[in-house]
Amino acid sequence: MRVAVLRGVGDVAMEQRAVPSPGPGEVLVKVTAVGVCGSDTHYFDHGRIGRFVVDEPLVLGHEASGVIVAVGPGVIGRQVGQRVSIEPGRPDFTCEQCLAGRYNLCPEMRFFATPPIDGAFAEHVVVHEAMAHVVPDNVSDEAAALLEPLSVAVWAARKGAVGAGSRVLVTGAGAIGLLCVQVARALGATRIAVSDVNPARLGVASELGATDVIDARTTGLSDLGWSPTVLLECSGHPPVVAEGIRSLAAAGRAVLVGMGGDELPLPLSYVQEHEIEVTGIFRYANTWPTAIALVASGRVDLDRLVTGRFGLAQAADALTAARRDPAAIKAIVRPGS
Amino acid sequence: MRVAVLRGVGDVAMEQRAVPSPGPGEVLVKVTAVGVCGSDTHYFDHGRIGRFVVDEPLVLGHEASGVIVAVGPGVIGRQVGQRVSIEPGRPDFTCEQCLAGRYNLCPEMRFFATPPIDGAFAEHVVVHEAMAHVVPDNVSDEAAALLEPLSVAVWAARKGAVGAGSRVLVTGAGAIGLLCVQVARALGATRIAVSDVNPARLGVASELGATDVIDARTTGLSDLGWSPTVLLECSGHPPVVAEGIRSLAAAGRAVLVGMGGDELPLPLSYVQEHEIEVTGIFRYANTWPTAIALVASGRVDLDRLVTGRFGLAQAADALTAARRDPAAIKAIVRPGS
Amino acid sequence: MRVAVLRGVGDVAMEQRAVPSPGPGEVLVKVTAVGVCGSDTHYFDHGRIGRFVVDEPLVLGHEASGVIVAVGPGVIGRQVGQRVSIEPGRPDFTCEQCLAGRYNLCPEMRFFATPPIDGAFAEHVVVHEAMAHVVPDNVSDEAAALLEPLSVAVWAARKGAVGAGSRVLVTGAGAIGLLCVQVARALGATRIAVSDVNPARLGVASELGATDVIDARTTGLSDLGWSPTVLLECSGHPPVVAEGIRSLAAAGRAVLVGMGGDELPLPLSYVQEHEIEVTGIFRYANTWPTAIALVASGRVDLDRLVTGRFGLAQAADALTAARRDPAAIKAIVRPGS
Amino acid sequence: MRVAVLRGVGDVAMEQRAVPSPGPGEVLVKVTAVGVCGSDTHYFDHGRIGRFVVDEPLVLGHEASGVIVAVGPGVIGRQVGQRVSIEPGRPDFTCEQCLAGRYNLCPEMRFFATPPIDGAFAEHVVVHEAMAHVVPDNVSDEAAALLEPLSVAVWAARKGAVGAGSRVLVTGAGAIGLLCVQVARALGATRIAVSDVNPARLGVASELGATDVIDARTTGLSDLGWSPTVLLECSGHPPVVAEGIRSLAAAGRAVLVGMGGDELPLPLSYVQEHEIEVTGIFRYANTWPTAIALVASGRVDLDRLVTGRFGLAQAADALTAARRDPAAIKAIVRPGS
Repeated sequence: MRVAVLRGVGDVAMEQRAVPSPGPGEVLVKVTAVGVCGSDTHYFDHGRIGRFVVDEPLVLGHEASGVIVAVGPGVIGRQVGQRVSIEPGRPDFTCEQCLAGRYNLCPEMRFFATPPIDGAFAEHVVVHEAMAHVVPDNVSDEAAALLEPLSVAVWAARKGAVGAGSRVLVTGAGAIGLLCVQVARALGATRIAVSDVNPARLGVASELGATDVIDARTTGLSDLGWSPTVLLECSGHPPVVAEGIRSLAAAGRAVLVGMGGDELPLPLSYVQEHEIEVTGIFRYANTWPTAIALVASGRVDLDRLVTGRFGLAQAADALTAARRDPAAIKAIVRPGS
Repeated sequence: MRVAVLRGVGDVAMEQRAVPSPGPGEVLVKVTAVGVCGSDTHYFDHGRIGRFVVDEPLVLGHEASGVIVAVGPGVIGRQVGQRVSIEPGRPDFTCEQCLAGRYNLCPEMRFFATPPIDGAFAEHVVVHEAMAHVVPDNVSDEAAALLEPLSVAVWAARKGAVGAGSRVLVTGAGAIGLLCVQVARALGATRIAVSDVNPARLGVASELGATDVIDARTTGLSDLGWSPTVLLECSGHPPVVAEGIRSLAAAGRAVLVGMGGDELPLPLSYVQEHEIEVTGIFRYANTWPTAIALVASGRVDLDRLVTGRFGLAQAADALTAARRDPAAIKAIVRPGS
Repeated sequence: MRVAVLRGVGDVAMEQRAVPSPGPGEVLVKVTAVGVCGSDTHYFDHGRIGRFVVDEPLVLGHEASGVIVAVGPGVIGRQVGQRVSIEPGRPDFTCEQCLAGRYNLCPEMRFFATPPIDGAFAEHVVVHEAMAHVVPDNVSDEAAALLEPLSVAVWAARKGAVGAGSRVLVTGAGAIGLLCVQVARALGATRIAVSDVNPARLGVASELGATDVIDARTTGLSDLGWSPTVLLECSGHPPVVAEGIRSLAAAGRAVLVGMGGDELPLPLSYVQEHEIEVTGIFRYANTWPTAIALVASGRVDLDRLVTGRFGLAQAADALTAARRDPAAIKAIVRPGS
Repeated sequence: MRVAVLRGVGDVAMEQRAVPSPGPGEVLVKVTAVGVCGSDTHYFDHGRIGRFVVDEPLVLGHEASGVIVAVGPGVIGRQVGQRVSIEPGRPDFTCEQCLAGRYNLCPEMRFFATPPIDGAFAEHVVVHEAMAHVVPDNVSDEAAALLEPLSVAVWAARKGAVGAGSRVLVTGAGAIGLLCVQVARALGATRIAVSDVNPARLGVASELGATDVIDARTTGLSDLGWSPTVLLECSGHPPVVAEGIRSLAAAGRAVLVGMGGDELPLPLSYVQEHEIEVTGIFRYANTWPTAIALVASGRVDLDRLVTGRFGLAQAADALTAARRDPAAIKAIVRPGS
């Protein structure tokens, strides 16, 4: 099968590899669509993210959908022919974190496109059947791939306890921020503000349900006129994080989604006097059923985010699409085309 | 001022009373609209609800909106001229339940239209300023009145932990049931089934967001084809309650909203083996801000429920409207007309 | 190896069986101690519990400890020689309930001594390594076995949200009730009442931390003088359950631990007016680390509950010990003696 | 009556004032004991804490107990002669935060010894009856005063979700830290580590239930050997906060109790990768009933913390006692002596 491999900084090349065989409990998926994530681009540009270093060839891509073409021994819940969205992590299932329902914190997690585990820029991948989520017909292949970033937004909203009447501030209107807007709306948030420096993205945010948009080049968060109860921080910029936290209502919650380096100045006395809860998220757990239901019921529109499509051989173009077009939101690689 | 007074079973008469004066912290509200609740009709028909007995003349009506026309000493947060939705209870604010945020469980609660406390079938009422919730212009007078039953639905959904991807079963499609449908939808529930014996009401349920309707005359809950994660029980019929609980998925939650007598057969072994959580609700607490936001943002449509309008002198007609018209959902009394 | 097998009602006989081999991820445990549970005795006496029927020979016993004597392929976290407490269930680890941290609700659960799965009245058993919890030296073999019923009490307390200042009512002072007393005390409950008809057990309850004891032969729960915030119902007697719920403070929680048939009269209006939360428990999840820590730190005394010791050949005597001695609490079978 | 008044930095003087009269809902309390808090000393030394500036004479002291000697109009729940512990804040009871049970976040809060509200270094004070908590006979006057700092510890533990099996790290072994140790133990924490630079305080921590003590002059938190699940940060030193957070287990919680300036470096990537929840506390809400129950039941020993007693005229000595004696923990002012 054909695979796009990151061999070094800025160097992605096509290789031929053997189609893998599904082991016990595993399924073989023919990949139909793979979304490009900012982390893929970061590995392409820098060869590392923090402590994760690409020192051997690595297959990128962890937002993927496909069709089951073979099942391994003992698979009981999946069949050949099913269309699936891939949850790209494989925890050990039996450690204390897994048993407690926090499998995203499993110390033995093997995650797609995170060195040394290969990802989905390939014609086929193998995953555990529990991580191959069957999608209904009214969810497109590309939407099925984008259930992965939607899961990040669902998880962020859950950690932020977004619910009926929540007033949500989303800082950063990239793909994750735009998904946070949609999820917040779907969960009953009645004020949803979005800040960014990119007017095109703010326009999409409005279209997808934001009630207030803030052009961060000219306007501060304090000009909002109301106090958010939840901050979903998707920019990763330390000053934005601090300003976002300071904008929260008493007893508000801040969820740090964007990655912004190792340390962050936390406005301590504000956090204490207003009993703000601050947390960060690491991937997600138990989000796929919810994400599928949100898309299948029409509450969240994933197809709207797709702004470019590429073949496997154009993976490098897909990885760099966002820097060429400020209106780009999400590039999709289609290994079969 | 004119007041409609329940003097005995089936006997409502107009009386003249002095306009009350707002005390410290209180406001005087000129009533614009009052919804008729099933409990009002029950008092009209039977003169009692359980241990609450009408043994002196009683003013009914507890779903009310109006305009502030005077403020008492020390009122700092409300002004003459504001349009308000009335939260019809007055807790003592300082007991252990109140301080814990559960003021609905305050043992000193004085609640509208509950003997011996008068309600809102009157031209004016006095309430504490904290219970007079200012509504924005895009919320109609009648919708402002119906924020009270909406609060019941919001509270039920909160107790049921309805959220993104919840699968909700609403048993009983009266006004509260229909509001539960809308609230469940607004909070991200992706499957919402409603059962009733009245096809007209099931039609409205579909229109308001139900994904499945069950004609209980011919179809059992077990024919649903999927397991609800939340039961919002609004019928009060013991066999429906038990069947509803037995339909729940493991770890499901049942919220008993409908009143159905003193005792209920609980399917114990089902509850244990599936760790179902069962709870009942008593009015609501801290729901108005959420309810207002849901209506003002267009998530919940209260005006759609209004099926009849009556003057104060026609209060008896309003109280009996539902029995004359199976399509009736909510009668409104307008004291000013 | 020798095994005690239930061949029919009242008929337990010794058999020779091959020592099982641990499969992938499994360990072989030489059993040192097994507690006798009321459910074992119920199978012995009646051949069934509800829908679970003993229609083939069954090995009883699910409260067990032992020493690891062999490990299967791929075992990475356990070693030969470790003393372990056995968690007697084997979920599939990968279904929706398991991934959500509720593995006790796994539909594929295989549980010791529940037809057709054999239990621990045997010289050796095989379990998944994740279910073989290593215990420190200061936890005795018998205490290690009794971590299983302690887990029930920990789970009940968790479902009841027992914490600092809780006022707990435990109905039924059998082994589980007595463990609930100790757990409630360890978690900060400051009033702990226990009711039973057996004065010997009430004496033990006092010794273990109960602040009030109620002889149910002569005294009603309403004579308690204070309102519990949590009911841990361990009797399974419907009138006690109903009376217990009616004794709760507003916003109280009732956890139905004792099994008492298929249906139970629930005091509906009391539950509604006081917003009582009622739930049942089914085994436990993620309790062993807590249970071990409570025993190892001296907060809970399990050894105190042991009132009889038997060899494997005396299993029938162990199963019927409680009916011969009203002061009996927990019989232990020691397969090695 | 006699009152000790802070007139300027380092200047406390006795004054005569009229005994205040209790208004509606209020009681007059003859003060028996007042604990000295670090914040009192900070006002004495610096004339301000952050944005709170002493620019008029101020009576310090907010940890107080006494006896009711008069009741105002409408008081129904308190009587002359009752011994009470004073909760030193007066919220407005009716704002959105109060109604939600978060009265500590009430924007209209009037709090003892916080400019311009006078405190309890006086022979008499007036408080709302809801804030005068009756204590049982087995709680001493001094313990009744120290229910206030105990409330801080109870609130911290609640925010940290300390419970059975929690592994708690307390950084800073001052009065609050030592109370956190006791509360953690009372709530079922099974490992409790305390770090400080003062060996005398570490000794007291061991005596009160700490399982591990860390002399921070020589030992880092990473030498602990186990990962805490909860950090109760009572030092306010930014490097300790950051190190404490980095020591937490995945899904751990950090509660920032100590005040340490306006900003704090938060270890962002650690917080994200381990999904740590960080929050700060501001006073407390609904803690007195729990705190009283913990002391009355013997779970927490407050009297042990008292290391000095002073008359009202010796208030300045009381305020500076801690700097004269490294073994000092809590100074008490007794206005009646």
